[in-house]
Amino acid sequence: MNLILLEPGELNDAGEARLSGRRAHHIREVLHAKAGRKLRAGILNGPLGSVEVVTVQDDEVALRFDSSGAIPPVPPVDLLLALPRPKVMKRLWAPLAQIGVGRIFLTNAEKVERYYFDSHVLDPAFYRPRLIEGLEQAMDTRVPEVAVHKQLKVLLEDELGDLCPDGRRLIADPGAKTRVGDAVGGDRILLAVGPEGGWTVYELDLFRAHGFTSVSAGLRVLRTDIACIALLTLVHDAGRA
Amino acid sequence: MNLILLEPGELNDAGEARLSGRRAHHIREVLHAKAGRKLRAGILNGPLGSVEVVTVQDDEVALRFDSSGAIPPVPPVDLLLALPRPKVMKRLWAPLAQIGVGRIFLTNAEKVERYYFDSHVLDPAFYRPRLIEGLEQAMDTRVPEVAVHKQLKVLLEDELGDLCPDGRRLIADPGAKTRVGDAVGGDRILLAVGPEGGWTVYELDLFRAHGFTSVSAGLRVLRTDIACIALLTLVHDAGRA
Repeated sequence: MNLILLEPGELNDAGEARLSGRRAHHIREVLHAKAGRKLRAGILNGPLGSVEVVTVQDDEVALRFDSSGAIPPVPPVDLLLALPRPKVMKRLWAPLAQIGVGRIFLTNAEKVERYYFDSHVLDPAFYRPRLIEGLEQAMDTRVPEVAVHKQLKVLLEDELGDLCPDGRRLIADPGAKTRVGDAVGGDRILLAVGPEGGWTVYELDLFRAHGFTSVSAGLRVLRTDIACIALLTLVHDAGRA
Repeated sequence: MNLILLEPGELNDAGEARLSGRRAHHIREVLHAKAGRKLRAGILNGPLGSVEVVTVQDDEVALRFDSSGAIPPVPPVDLLLALPRPKVMKRLWAPLAQIGVGRIFLTNAEKVERYYFDSHVLDPAFYRPRLIEGLEQAMDTRVPEVAVHKQLKVLLEDELGDLCPDGRRLIADPGAKTRVGDAVGGDRILLAVGPEGGWTVYELDLFRAHGFTSVSAGLRVLRTDIACIALLTLVHDAGRA
């Protein structure tokens, strides 16, 4: 936990918050913080800053927040992901928030099993704490927005124009010769990553018809979670060039 | 499992192997392969090629290997990693082999707990199957070499000159302004990744004194496993440029 993240509603009018549970435990047992100590902090979807520890008790830690920093920009990349197996998706939430992604569109595909959409890993009560865990690690406050689109065709044909009107659209394909860095150029990026068995020819044609360019992270065939981390890393890195 | 990987000793003089267990189950229950079907295959640390299914029985699958492909080159990057918590290291074996790494040097550091080295996750019987799982995914045959060096100072001062005489030495540092791609130039790369709490100033000085240049994958502070995947991705991608 490199950053203490607070919900906006946790602050009272004096800018103070009283924490119990995981964060209080971290402040008390890992950081061994006493009254007066300042720690890096942030408000979810709000500014970075610091908290000063006011009191430390066995069951509660009181903090005063100082919003000395800026509100971090939304990461310049969105992810359109064919929903992986629940076991894989479960482990992917925190890394996605760590690497940095603005929006996550989870979608169906021919090779996605229908029952994946019934999994508890798509419940905000399950994934939001994991996204926040990723932000605590990466020292960001911007919670990725998550949307489930059960019909890929409807998403691409009817919805994506409004959801992502600008920017470049890339689709991951291990066979593609184009490097991510050569396809990214300062615009906002929408990156599509397919299911374990890959997109079908029909689906690939649909993506291409809607402006998606094929890119790859190399010749190796990566599992969905590793592919997402690798490709998002390359998009972010290209933005630094 | 995108590739059926065989141990050299599993082939008889006629080039046939009899499998039971995980691979046989995959061939029978996932691929539904019958006699005569050809599947992508490889020999560990040997050539790629194909296997033809000879017989499929409930408890055994017989295959004939044809080494029609080349022996893949050793990935052009080695990893020097401050040993992470066993829980993190456990999950990192398969992704490291997936992304591609020649050698993995696991080392001590001030912020590495001594007891991590007693974990079963450092037992070859534990990690080798996980490395092979990563190779099956990425379609490679080269098993990363693993070595444990309990003394960082001895490794850097006395051993690294012989182990890695050539190539460039990079050290991951979230504060560094140099991108990986700007520090890589066709040479073999040795990449050092630190512990959760970071290297100490003394350790960083030791790395710099032994020719390591600081690079970063961006400003975000990534957990060790995600940092390894991100940085290795950037090294591989720079090699494609």
